[in-house]
Amino acid sequence: MAKGLPKRSEDFSGWYNELVGMADLAENSGVRGCMVIKPYGFAIWEKMQDQLDRMFKETGHQNAYFPLFVPKSLFEAEEKNAEGFAKECAVVTHYRLKTDPEDASKLIVDPNAKLEEELIVRPTSEAIIWNTYKGWIQSYRDLPILINQWANVVRWEMRTRLFLRTAEFLWQEGHTAHATKQEALDETAQMLDVYAAFAENFMAMPVVKGYKTENERFAGADDTYCIEALMQDGKALQAGTSHFLGQNFAKAFDVKFADKDGKQDYVWATSWGVSTRLMGALIMSHSDDYGLVLPPKLAPIQVAIVPIYKGEDQLAQVSEVANEIKDALIAKGLSVKYDDDDKRKPGWKFAEYEVKGVPVRIAIGARDLENGTVEVARRDTMSKETMPREEVVDHVAGLMDEIQCSLLVRNQQFVKENTHEVETWEEFVDVIENKGGFVSAHWDGTGETEQQIKEATKATIRCIPFDAQEVEGKCIFTGNPSKRKVLFAKAY
Amino acid sequence: MAKGLPKRSEDFSGWYNELVGMADLAENSGVRGCMVIKPYGFAIWEKMQDQLDRMFKETGHQNAYFPLFVPKSLFEAEEKNAEGFAKECAVVTHYRLKTDPEDASKLIVDPNAKLEEELIVRPTSEAIIWNTYKGWIQSYRDLPILINQWANVVRWEMRTRLFLRTAEFLWQEGHTAHATKQEALDETAQMLDVYAAFAENFMAMPVVKGYKTENERFAGADDTYCIEALMQDGKALQAGTSHFLGQNFAKAFDVKFADKDGKQDYVWATSWGVSTRLMGALIMSHSDDYGLVLPPKLAPIQVAIVPIYKGEDQLAQVSEVANEIKDALIAKGLSVKYDDDDKRKPGWKFAEYEVKGVPVRIAIGARDLENGTVEVARRDTMSKETMPREEVVDHVAGLMDEIQCSLLVRNQQFVKENTHEVETWEEFVDVIENKGGFVSAHWDGTGETEQQIKEATKATIRCIPFDAQEVEGKCIFTGNPSKRKVLFAKAY
Repeated sequence: MAKGLPKRSEDFSGWYNELVGMADLAENSGVRGCMVIKPYGFAIWEKMQDQLDRMFKETGHQNAYFPLFVPKSLFEAEEKNAEGFAKECAVVTHYRLKTDPEDASKLIVDPNAKLEEELIVRPTSEAIIWNTYKGWIQSYRDLPILINQWANVVRWEMRTRLFLRTAEFLWQEGHTAHATKQEALDETAQMLDVYAAFAENFMAMPVVKGYKTENERFAGADDTYCIEALMQDGKALQAGTSHFLGQNFAKAFDVKFADKDGKQDYVWATSWGVSTRLMGALIMSHSDDYGLVLPPKLAPIQVAIVPIYKGEDQLAQVSEVANEIKDALIAKGLSVKYDDDDKRKPGWKFAEYEVKGVPVRIAIGARDLENGTVEVARRDTMSKETMPREEVVDHVAGLMDEIQCSLLVRNQQFVKENTHEVETWEEFVDVIENKGGFVSAHWDGTGETEQQIKEATKATIRCIPFDAQEVEGKCIFTGNPSKRKVLFAKAY
Repeated sequence: MAKGLPKRSEDFSGWYNELVGMADLAENSGVRGCMVIKPYGFAIWEKMQDQLDRMFKETGHQNAYFPLFVPKSLFEAEEKNAEGFAKECAVVTHYRLKTDPEDASKLIVDPNAKLEEELIVRPTSEAIIWNTYKGWIQSYRDLPILINQWANVVRWEMRTRLFLRTAEFLWQEGHTAHATKQEALDETAQMLDVYAAFAENFMAMPVVKGYKTENERFAGADDTYCIEALMQDGKALQAGTSHFLGQNFAKAFDVKFADKDGKQDYVWATSWGVSTRLMGALIMSHSDDYGLVLPPKLAPIQVAIVPIYKGEDQLAQVSEVANEIKDALIAKGLSVKYDDDDKRKPGWKFAEYEVKGVPVRIAIGARDLENGTVEVARRDTMSKETMPREEVVDHVAGLMDEIQCSLLVRNQQFVKENTHEVETWEEFVDVIENKGGFVSAHWDGTGETEQQIKEATKATIRCIPFDAQEVEGKCIFTGNPSKRKVLFAKAY
């Protein structure tokens, strides 16, 4: 166990909060609900960004940038969207400060610098973007528009937690415009597939793809698709969403196009996003009581090499071997850190790379030099082995895939073991309260029932899985007929 | 000349504004003073970011992210900095909207959701970052801290122009903390060198490195170093700044460290930044009356291939050759677009790639197929040549370096021709009013004289060049003694 880190089994929430700090990922700032993402945490986020950005570009999207502010009149144009976000908006009302006449060392808002129209700090950018698209779209030749933006957004949440729910967060938001409903539906599905592929192949995090219920839909969407992951404490986490927006924003902003026959119609839209919340999901998927565990594909440092030595001569000898191994691993495309900082002891370094989730650690000491060996430690299994020096490079390079794969398999197993089929209300309550995990159960399809189940158990419908089979059954709560099971869980 | 584009010689400002729109770089948004960066413009900015980010990392910096908002009490902690930015701050005062009781379709700011303390949308992040560093720094072991952030910032400018001066802009801001004054000075100089190297080697834009005068310093800095470039209309543009902040922020936020002997001292600081303003500098450095001219290293598309054909059979034949050339160029690391869109005519495509500044265009027609040739056109010189098909790949690959280099040399020549040495006030006024360019002249070193010269001619001291030699002389304005010449210009 890492010093000062609570055990997951005893205090999962305390473990998470402490780990985010200990692993140098993020911390709370001097601004209520806003976080500082520290360099090590940001390096992981950059790896996520790089990969997602590549996947967006491979599917034909381009990046652009739209304003941080949304004038109130634009913000309120799409009614449902405005209603959904109005309660948590940061509002800019003035554009100047002045010296406080009562205390020259202080500044106050200048009452003469009130904006004619208030500006909303974007909680999401549909409004400002569709107001822009209006100028870009006249005919079918201008479609589709396939744009993504990496940006910060602000939602004034009252209860915040690092990465999982913060007043300001970083995300990407895709906003696309199409000539037909089917094209927009295909785009919505495609981007959910991109998210699911990223979660599984890079985060080593299995996800369930499905539809949100009407209650849980994005404000302004006709349909919301989502990927849902399961954390180690049995709570679900919504990891990404892709929205079919129908013609709602096109109507709100009067965006029409002429088709090949010159007929005018409103444009069809999608939007889709993932955020720094994925950092929380990554942490809670793999990490353990020793600290962070990172899948190699997202680890800023994949291999740390620690020398064990007495005196400068030994260090020089160890360094020669260490640098050879380092160079050979770098030549294979791995990111390697050789840590010969002599202000820190090896034990301190071991603990440091453990808590930071570095996938593989290599230690080289005086005895290794004599024997022609090195010690290789795997972070995911906490296992060590001593091996001939000439084998280490191939072995460690191979470990990258092995660890990546093994984390995914372990988590797939975990999700399987923690997905429960229930048929009765008693079973449902028992599982939700005592076991956690995903609960697959019949539901009568009404928002009222969904709400009552939530009030009774805190469990929500995470999604109606894409692959849910049609099976006749009875709603666990009302006994009314149901055609398929849906996935419930307590959620982040 | 490109249709609808004013000539530079007749209306430089109109030419710039029109070109930014025609080349699909950016446009004004529905928010006063804020721009939309369009996909093509953003792709150029991404190339700048990639390269700068690489250079920052090579010099030991890491990225991180700090909050968008600065509480007023932190904002005002460093007095000069606060004073410098107070007049142009966007201020968040409320965190919720509600339905207008007089009109249910409207939203109003909820008066019950007033923040206890106003939040300033960051115009620059020294305050929020030094408030954070306070928690990170106890001893010399915690130093240096070498962090960069890519972010949006807001300065409520009254007169805005796309890229050059916008209320919101994108930038990077480096913020470093050091144990000694010398280390901080070295860092300040190093980052200016990085900016200068980027400007010259990637933007093909020569710059003068120098010190800002006290009047022109960053608010809160002890010294500001800058790179100054010269635009085609003879006006200067400040392209990047690197600030030596002394111990000003450490004192304002009480950030001390213990040195090796346990003695406490305030930490030394630097900050440095470049912004989307560089896009304006890039445009105004190279472009011409036909449109944008891009240096190959920053061009999103380096080579466009346009087929000229009648009917599908010919297109198929041309495409075979075109795709071969495309693949061979891509294999050499170039970014190539083969434009076989049959909704557009070749002439339209030629104009499009000209206005977008694509460095090289290849055209292939039916006659080329017969002759085994292709036509290669250079955007920078607007010259064309027909050459054997088997030579084109090597030739075009070689053109990338040649064009990059030739743009730099051309601009170096331009700066040289437009840098004027003057000795008298009459000469000075004549050059500033009739010729433009950099004017090297003696100045008595006082802020008053600097201010009077500015009021009389609109020329400002762009910098005291690092390489200015000590030469005794007399101030052009007051006749008082001066030890070196400084660089004046009208500026953006």
